[in-house]
Formats: sequence, structure tokens, C-alpha cells
Amino acid sequence: MSKENKRVSEAVIRRMPKYYRYLKEMKASGIKRISSRELSKKMGLTASQIRQDFNCFGGFGQQGYGYNVEELCDEIQKILGLHKEYNMIVIGAGNLGQALANYSGFEQEGFNIKALFDINPRLVGISIRGIPILDIDHIEGFLSQCEVHIAAICTPKKTAQEMVDRLIECGVKAIWNFAPIDVNAPDDVVVENVHLSDTLYTISLRMNEDYN
Amino acid sequence: MSKENKRVSEAVIRRMPKYYRYLKEMKASGIKRISSRELSKKMGLTASQIRQDFNCFGGFGQQGYGYNVEELCDEIQKILGLHKEYNMIVIGAGNLGQALANYSGFEQEGFNIKALFDINPRLVGISIRGIPILDIDHIEGFLSQCEVHIAAICTPKKTAQEMVDRLIECGVKAIWNFAPIDVNAPDDVVVENVHLSDTLYTISLRMNEDYN
Repeated sequence: MSKENKRVSEAVIRRMPKYYRYLKEMKASGIKRISSRELSKKMGLTASQIRQDFNCFGGFGQQGYGYNVEELCDEIQKILGLHKEYNMIVIGAGNLGQALANYSGFEQEGFNIKALFDINPRLVGISIRGIPILDIDHIEGFLSQCEVHIAAICTPKKTAQEMVDRLIECGVKAIWNFAPIDVNAPDDVVVENVHLSDTLYTISLRMNEDYN
Repeated sequence: MSKENKRVSEAVIRRMPKYYRYLKEMKASGIKRISSRELSKKMGLTASQIRQDFNCFGGFGQQGYGYNVEELCDEIQKILGLHKEYNMIVIGAGNLGQALANYSGFEQEGFNIKALFDINPRLVGISIRGIPILDIDHIEGFLSQCEVHIAAICTPKKTAQEMVDRLIECGVKAIWNFAPIDVNAPDDVVVENVHLSDTLYTISLRMNEDYN
């Protein structure tokens, strides 16, 4: 990461996947060019915000002509690291873990789920779309054989941090955590804590904005 | 919503559930008081940001003494609307829909899932923790009998917007959407589009921050 990139704010980083979604959709519908004004209208952002966001990554396109949709989409795909392939595992093969394994959208973007792990003997041995559910006790052996880039944590709260520690010990460098706590990791490990409840609570907040 | 509250930014709104999580945890561990400096350290924010965030809602506590954890927790719980009860339904009883129904954390905060709906005859008739899976064709009848505040959308992409339109037609005022598109709704309906892929892509972005 260059010093310049280190200044890209959290908020900008979080908007990049959204740009990608919209651009991919436009590309698929055959749209060739789009102005920042049109893009802003579609996405509910201001045109100046879009230009500022893109400038964080060196800026793209020519403003007079608007952006070339395909080129912009490809650039953002690269920024998101989606031009590469990643091996993933899912820890916890309950409903949420199985939902991740069942969703084909991830592998379309290069995220290949290699295995799920669980402690439940009724789940171990089953396959989800050809992806095996393995015994959690075999995780260290598995990681010594297969390079895993990202681990999704779909365990209950109480075992999440312990599992994260075990995975990091085995060299996993990115954690996608769905357990309802913020898990911690050393600075060289990427951690994304996804709190589904938080998104639900912003709904109830908005439904109650007359609280004063 | 008062004019003053309308100025509360999206970023502040998104931080409120996180404050709530941390304060609830501290309250449960018996912590009585916390300064904004200590809270900032725990949460990875600056003390001044915390004070600014709280000022958006009128400000709480006395700075010299720090915040009373229980009082602050209760205040934020009210801001989030978690002092009330909500009836919820889940559209789509696949793995993700079932994961939502299986998670007891939502009802602990007053979100009561009343039913799931699906088109799959093999799922219709089953119960998840006592919550019935009903035929999607019965949704209008159900909504005429039971006041539903929030609907979670766990359908495939292609049916999500159509389902949202049907639900809004029946008076549902809040949509928690997990389908991988941004669904639209009139201004008086609260919509929260949760894009799990987006959070995965911020991981791969961070793993590739040497892209330049």
C-alpha cells in the first residue's frame, strides 16, 4: 500500500463495492458511457462526491465525455482485488454458513469456498454444492495442505475469537466475521466484522426518529 | 422527526448500534462509569468524535465524571427504538431466512419474527423455533390480520423488488433487504439494503492495497 492510498478513508472504501455493483449492472445492460452527474443520480450520491472518491484512486475517465462504463468497471474491479482468485473456508456450518456456501455469487467474483467446518457430527460429512463440511478438529491439518486467504466466521459469539486466533496461528490473513462480537486480530490481518443486528437497529432508529 | 434530528448524518446513525453493543457489554460486566477517552479507546474512535456523535442527540452525561454506563446505554437503546416491540416477517425461507429465524438475539431486542414465507412447497408447513413457514400466496391475507412493522427480504435478486412492492402495497413500512440488489421504496418506507458481498469486497480491497 502506497502512502497515498493509506489516506483513502473508510467511507470511500465502503462506497467502492457499490460503484462496482452499479457499473457491472450498467455494463450488462449495454451502457457504454455515463457522466458523473448521471451516475450520481442513479446511486444517490453527489457528482462531486463521485469525482472525489475516484480521485482517491488516481481518478478515471474524462469528465467532458463522462466515464467509459466498461473501463471504469474494470478499474474498480481491480481496486477491489476482484481480478484475483481467493480460497475461502467457512467456520460454522449452520444456516448462515450454509447460506454463504449456497450462494454462487461469491465464486463468480473469484471467492472459492473450499470447505466448511463444524463441531456437529450430524453435519460433518455432508456436502453443500459439492463443498464438504469437515470436522473443526481437522482445521489445522487442512490449512497446512490448502492455502486459505479468507475465513468466514459463522460460529456462535462465544467461540468466535478462539477460532479466529486458531486460524491466524495457521496463517490466515483475512477474517469475515458474522458472529455478533467484534473479533480482534493483529494489524497484518484484515478483519471485517459484519453485524447484521446493527443494520436492523438502524431501521428501528429511522422508524423512531421522533424520539425527542 | 424534528428538523434538528434530520441533520444527523448517515455516518453517525451507523455508529449508534456499535455504541449500543459496547455499552451493553460494559453494563453486563458491571462497569458503572466510563469517560469518552476510555470509550474511544475501546471502540477505536476519537473522544471528540464520540462527544460530537452524542451531541447530535442532545448530548449525554457529564464529562468531568464520564458517562453513566447504564444511563447512556438506556438512552442509546431509546434512540435505536429498542425500547419498543416490532413484528417482523421473513420473505424467503432458504438458508439465510432460516438463519434469521433461528437467531434469538433479535427477539431479545424486541424484534419478533411472526412468520416466514416461501414458494417452495417442501418448506411451507415447517416451523423454525415455532415460527411457521407459510405460502407466499397467503402474504396479503396474513398482513391484513397481523400488523407487521418490518419485512426481511431473503429472496433471490429477481423477485426482491416485486416482493417489496407487494409488501408496501399492504402497508409494511420497513424493508430489511438481503437480496443482492438495492430495492426501492417510497420515501415514507425505511429501506436498509444489506449487501454481504460488499463487505467481502472491502476485505479483498484491503488485501490488495498495493494495487498502484
